[in-house]
Amino acid sequence: MNFEFFMPTRLVFGPGKVKEVGTYVKFIGKKALIVTGRSSAKKTGHLDMVTKSLEQEGIKWLAFDEVEPNPFTTTVERGANLARENHVDVVIGLGGGSAMDTAKGIAFMALNEGHVADYIAGKQGGDVLPIVLITTTAGTGSEANNYAVFTNPETKVKKSLKSPKTYARVSIIDPELMLTVPKKVTASTGIDVFFHAMEAYVGRRSQPFTDALALEAIRLVAESLKGAYEHGEDIQYRERMAWANTLAGVAINLSGTCGIHGMGHPLSGIYDVPHGESLAAVSLAFMRFNIFEAPGKFAKVAEALGVDVRGLTLSEAAEKSIEALRDLMDRVGLPKKISAFGITEKDIDTLAEHAYTKMTHNLEASPRVPTMDDVKRMYMESL
Amino acid sequence: MNFEFFMPTRLVFGPGKVKEVGTYVKFIGKKALIVTGRSSAKKTGHLDMVTKSLEQEGIKWLAFDEVEPNPFTTTVERGANLARENHVDVVIGLGGGSAMDTAKGIAFMALNEGHVADYIAGKQGGDVLPIVLITTTAGTGSEANNYAVFTNPETKVKKSLKSPKTYARVSIIDPELMLTVPKKVTASTGIDVFFHAMEAYVGRRSQPFTDALALEAIRLVAESLKGAYEHGEDIQYRERMAWANTLAGVAINLSGTCGIHGMGHPLSGIYDVPHGESLAAVSLAFMRFNIFEAPGKFAKVAEALGVDVRGLTLSEAAEKSIEALRDLMDRVGLPKKISAFGITEKDIDTLAEHAYTKMTHNLEASPRVPTMDDVKRMYMESL
Repeated sequence: MNFEFFMPTRLVFGPGKVKEVGTYVKFIGKKALIVTGRSSAKKTGHLDMVTKSLEQEGIKWLAFDEVEPNPFTTTVERGANLARENHVDVVIGLGGGSAMDTAKGIAFMALNEGHVADYIAGKQGGDVLPIVLITTTAGTGSEANNYAVFTNPETKVKKSLKSPKTYARVSIIDPELMLTVPKKVTASTGIDVFFHAMEAYVGRRSQPFTDALALEAIRLVAESLKGAYEHGEDIQYRERMAWANTLAGVAINLSGTCGIHGMGHPLSGIYDVPHGESLAAVSLAFMRFNIFEAPGKFAKVAEALGVDVRGLTLSEAAEKSIEALRDLMDRVGLPKKISAFGITEKDIDTLAEHAYTKMTHNLEASPRVPTMDDVKRMYMESL
Repeated sequence: MNFEFFMPTRLVFGPGKVKEVGTYVKFIGKKALIVTGRSSAKKTGHLDMVTKSLEQEGIKWLAFDEVEPNPFTTTVERGANLARENHVDVVIGLGGGSAMDTAKGIAFMALNEGHVADYIAGKQGGDVLPIVLITTTAGTGSEANNYAVFTNPETKVKKSLKSPKTYARVSIIDPELMLTVPKKVTASTGIDVFFHAMEAYVGRRSQPFTDALALEAIRLVAESLKGAYEHGEDIQYRERMAWANTLAGVAINLSGTCGIHGMGHPLSGIYDVPHGESLAAVSLAFMRFNIFEAPGKFAKVAEALGVDVRGLTLSEAAEKSIEALRDLMDRVGLPKKISAFGITEKDIDTLAEHAYTKMTHNLEASPRVPTMDDVKRMYMESL
């Protein structure tokens, strides 16, 4: 076995921790750009909590509140201009994956010339402003890795900026911030946690360290997603989902995702489908196509999802992972078909070509590497 | 739940990786001090592997080969003088815990005034030379944390230097280096891995992240220590023990050890007992004193050690952890009594007083916090 572990972010976990953000930021910078979505950080009061703590520590701040869901590369560039014009020395991302990823992109582009799309395509970057992340969903795991996913508004391609320097210095995971996440968002972000963990675990870039974290994350999601969905005000469910999210975020940092994200991203990029729902809708077809290539791993997924696999053969146990995932998605009202988003047969060629040509790296990390026809078939099966 | 995760070292794991050390060091420094024990790094050829790789990358080096087992604070100071006189800009620790810890101490003292004992006692330090560690045993986990344990030759106190800056930049975990570790050292370092994992897991500073890593480490030790002991030439056993060691090293980085290390260190400090053996000899008395304070945790330890706990009550399962540990230690020929080192009843007061007054932090992290009398009784039971 050959592998590396690297995740230099200080993860600070606990209810109420957001109110201490200034005590961490004061060692990092004096003037912060706070990156948020368009309104929820204000409505929920989270922005006030952050600015109050910053002000207590004498840290100046300004806000950039223009982040949309599935954020555009152009949004990053607007934010980077603001950061440069105002000479900020630290960027704080406050929100779900979109806000945190945009914060990473802004911190990167504030000190690097040209267009973010060039760096996504592989151009090497230099220094990056220090980053602090506060996740308000469980979630994308963005607080525990150096990925930042953006959609190019011209090409509709949704891909990651990944720099060795876009790890947060400090990430705050405060489950209290998640108490007010609406049911639908709890479900779609929560299932994203599951797919991060499962794809990191079954994919070809899996390794012993992330395997242990990923299985733990799957167990936590299986135990707590339904509770967080039905009893969103209960901090215990939120804590466990928050923790599962961060574990899965560390797992994908090192082992990446594979075919479910590979087929889900085009649905978000082209049709603006919410991220977690896009994954849910293609996942069962992905599982049917892949389980017999790695039955031992899918059997462990079934077990982590709570299936009693004693007495079953490996392939029987592996098949149970599909049922268990379907049950879990049913319990939290997630779509299991792409037709739920208005996708019809005439869209399949576009989706498959996009996935096959733009998301190659993800598809090739799947246990069974699909051909273009296989990708089409999986989308067709998902209709 | 409130906790932090921070472990900024890049862990590079794989057979043969030691031969690539220069490719990592070249980004860090130009002139290296290699810190080793007195002879084994030369005899085994490990030093040659390292220097060859450094030279291939144009990195100058000199060696400090004066590290003894249970290294002294004075050894650190001699090494730091050598580092300063020769203007080295990176310190490489090559060996077991003694060599790696001494490398950390030298990197620290090369840039900090005064005596290492003052910093162990709590004085704040400044910058530290960059550190690269190569572990040749499985082991102390020192490659994955910022602890460095030294014995003060005057007071016989064995305690840790812990600075936020004594994490290695890169640690290489190459199981091939462990193929020639003698049986006795395999057993005593291997059981140290187990105690790191178990103490981090049952202790009062345990937390969800390290719990997951610690249980995985215990499972790996249970599966592989006997194989590594009996078939030391088999890379698969060495790989699993090497990996367990690093996982447990990450676990103690965040959750520390507790009473077994608290009672073991005085045996090493005063009577120069090898570290792992000192722990083994006090462990069963520690378990008997502690298990009913945290039966759920000890039941999980039993399960991770391979006990079938189905149908048992929690306390029955917890008790099985003692049997399972005794069996494991028997299988690899470890002492289960401190009398094996010539300790007699007349030494107990000295040991207990030393543990109680100098190792308070460890004792107080135990599930059941012992009084001085309790500590005496545990040593007596271990005779």
